[in-house]
Amino acid sequence: MKQHFHTHTIPTHGARLYEFTDAAQTFIAKSGIRDGLLTCFIRHTSASLLIQENADPNVQKDLIAAFSRLAPEAFPYAHDEEGPDDMPSHIKSALTAVSLSVPVRGGRLALGTWQGLYLFEHRSIAHRREVLLHGIGE
Amino acid sequence: MKQHFHTHTIPTHGARLYEFTDAAQTFIAKSGIRDGLLTCFIRHTSASLLIQENADPNVQKDLIAAFSRLAPEAFPYAHDEEGPDDMPSHIKSALTAVSLSVPVRGGRLALGTWQGLYLFEHRSIAHRREVLLHGIGE
Amino acid sequence: MKQHFHTHTIPTHGARLYEFTDAAQTFIAKSGIRDGLLTCFIRHTSASLLIQENADPNVQKDLIAAFSRLAPEAFPYAHDEEGPDDMPSHIKSALTAVSLSVPVRGGRLALGTWQGLYLFEHRSIAHRREVLLHGIGE
Repeated sequence: MKQHFHTHTIPTHGARLYEFTDAAQTFIAKSGIRDGLLTCFIRHTSASLLIQENADPNVQKDLIAAFSRLAPEAFPYAHDEEGPDDMPSHIKSALTAVSLSVPVRGGRLALGTWQGLYLFEHRSIAHRREVLLHGIGE
Repeated sequence: MKQHFHTHTIPTHGARLYEFTDAAQTFIAKSGIRDGLLTCFIRHTSASLLIQENADPNVQKDLIAAFSRLAPEAFPYAHDEEGPDDMPSHIKSALTAVSLSVPVRGGRLALGTWQGLYLFEHRSIAHRREVLLHGIGE
Repeated sequence: MKQHFHTHTIPTHGARLYEFTDAAQTFIAKSGIRDGLLTCFIRHTSASLLIQENADPNVQKDLIAAFSRLAPEAFPYAHDEEGPDDMPSHIKSALTAVSLSVPVRGGRLALGTWQGLYLFEHRSIAHRREVLLHGIGE
């Protein structure tokens, strides 16, 4: 049994989804893990992780809009020093995932046909986001 | 340290919760893992995973209704080709979990007294859903 | 490769966030795991887990209020035997996490600068909550 780690950096420029399925798959391929488990962990509290449909781009558009209705900017938040999109970002992060676990079979992520791995950026201004990848297996 | 994998298939017929606690427990028992970690991973984007109360059926009824209020069908989504329940399904999936990690002690899932593992089906039409089970431990 | 387990008990007295980052870090330090993965698992269905900002306390205040708007008490739930805050607690738990996976590097949780581990208590009355910690690594 072995382990591998990698910090995958994603530059973001605006609130939307950024796919990193290929980067995660490449990490597993390089690790030499045939069968095991991939864990993705985001080291931030105003961006989060999501596995979603990678086919119709409208799904992403509707998802972003739906989360903006669930955590609207137009609200008198107590935490408002960093701009109107900051507190909604924390709420959207709490509603989605900070870590994802994906089984690995035969050297490939065992994702369903329509599944892609995404960073869900909730802030408007540009950021450099770190997703820590951990593989364990043999 | 060893690993085991199993694809558990759940036929669904309507938007509700489908318990698979027993199937997960049986998988761990067969694997021979005494102490370790179970990961459940759903290979779909319009159904998701949930750990919830397995006592009063009204909890499930209220949960299903609550998620339908958070992601209503009556909304002009851009992604609407697959029916009015499709985009709400993606939103409900994003709001719940695609993967769950459950520690294993003494050959048993270390669930709390009232906890059960559920597949949360969000689509109305019948589906065959795959939940990939991964056990690691000794 | 080795594993360690520990049940961390958190007494709660009211619906709010309770940080347990230090307890998790101490568990990893005592386990002797240098590089690996920490899994936190809560054994309840009316309290949940969250990784959030540990700087401005207003973030927690706004988070708690936001979840109370998403799962309001003032609603005719079918499951109402255990008080008006019970069914909202299940909904809030479903919207957040029952398990969290955090990579460990150099004997430390690989958390971002602003990230803290929290138990999110949703019930008003006092409880003793169990968070099961599992470490795997070397």
